[in-house]
Amino acid sequence: MITKNEIKYIQSLYHKKTRDAEGLFIAEGEKLVNELLQSNFHIQQLYATADWEAQNASINNINIIETFELEKISNLATPNKVLAIVQQRKNIALPLAKNTITLVLDGIQDPGNMGTIIRIADWFGIHQIIASNDTVDIYNSKVVQSTMGSIIRVNCWYTAPDNWLQHCVVPVYGALLNGVNLQSTGKISEAVLVIGNESKGIRPYLLPHIQQAITIPRVGGAESLNAAVATGIILSHWVL
Amino acid sequence: MITKNEIKYIQSLYHKKTRDAEGLFIAEGEKLVNELLQSNFHIQQLYATADWEAQNASINNINIIETFELEKISNLATPNKVLAIVQQRKNIALPLAKNTITLVLDGIQDPGNMGTIIRIADWFGIHQIIASNDTVDIYNSKVVQSTMGSIIRVNCWYTAPDNWLQHCVVPVYGALLNGVNLQSTGKISEAVLVIGNESKGIRPYLLPHIQQAITIPRVGGAESLNAAVATGIILSHWVL
Repeated sequence: MITKNEIKYIQSLYHKKTRDAEGLFIAEGEKLVNELLQSNFHIQQLYATADWEAQNASINNINIIETFELEKISNLATPNKVLAIVQQRKNIALPLAKNTITLVLDGIQDPGNMGTIIRIADWFGIHQIIASNDTVDIYNSKVVQSTMGSIIRVNCWYTAPDNWLQHCVVPVYGALLNGVNLQSTGKISEAVLVIGNESKGIRPYLLPHIQQAITIPRVGGAESLNAAVATGIILSHWVL
Repeated sequence: MITKNEIKYIQSLYHKKTRDAEGLFIAEGEKLVNELLQSNFHIQQLYATADWEAQNASINNINIIETFELEKISNLATPNKVLAIVQQRKNIALPLAKNTITLVLDGIQDPGNMGTIIRIADWFGIHQIIASNDTVDIYNSKVVQSTMGSIIRVNCWYTAPDNWLQHCVVPVYGALLNGVNLQSTGKISEAVLVIGNESKGIRPYLLPHIQQAITIPRVGGAESLNAAVATGIILSHWVL
């Protein structure tokens, strides 16, 4: 059973303003919710169908609901058995750049791209992302779902990246179209990689902070690569 | 001016069945349509706003329409001045695998992934793709738009990939989770790369045709990489 007010409240969490005010986000589906249950994220509320509850007998405080009720609170085309309301991570201090690779995202807009970048970071063992304040919210439900669980292992701080970069003591690379060949940078384990907005690229206010522009050489005719694909290619050449 | 019947006809081209029967597809927006006009694709019909027409005075037979009319026939969130009805490419014989890299796509479903893969192929100078019959249609309007023009330079044949692979005389690689390290394959300029479905991967019917399974080594925690990102990473290591 779910009340009208609960439905209204959950639907309000699809808006960033309410999400931030409440410090919560929504995660859906068996796989993702099971991963969150095993993580150090705090699940505030679980709504699940009776068959999910039957398969997860060890879990307390499940609100058992009907599929038609799940459809009312879900944001998926095909709702999948369980929806969790989860506490956002509280990141207090900005991270240091030492001994790791940090991604800086300058205005990534598409939730699918954002989720894919988080998944790529996770694949290559990178746990920290600095995002400009106008980058799509990591707790946007489309971002959450498209991280495929990587949101658990990758941290994201929203701030003014130029300020953070000012105090940065490791080499700062930027993915640009007029840089040195990616191949020439060799293997890298301590650096910052700045990735630009899907259509505008890295905006001028960040350019003074980039010490080395790097480019994935183009062999054929395409004008650019998708931001997530470029991130994956650069990291694979650095890390592998 | 656009008639009710024209609107209905154009809207019907968003369905694969009609597209195939008519041998046509829809492309939208200034950049893509301008690229198509300069290519060897045959534009059958152009619908554009008066300001687009004014900027493209050399082009004949433009149907000038109002923005509210463009909205009725567009599939974009923000319609962009011009919509073209374009003849599909007629690919008769299947391509040979010699002297090039060919991508084989096994059931890619997401139009954004398909468009991104076509764009990646184009970036790395790869011009041929073999797609299983259940792979999303290259002429789906979301695929067309997300290729960002690369549809002009990359050919796609829909067929049973297992039959095509049977006659293939170059090495066949598959992106799998249990293969040899991508790094060990070195530079490659003549090969087939099989990319699997987003959730199922490469399906069993194709596995006997794969001579070498390759894997992008995982450093961190993510369970998999997006199909398009994996394609980009593998091609970058082969081609660059």
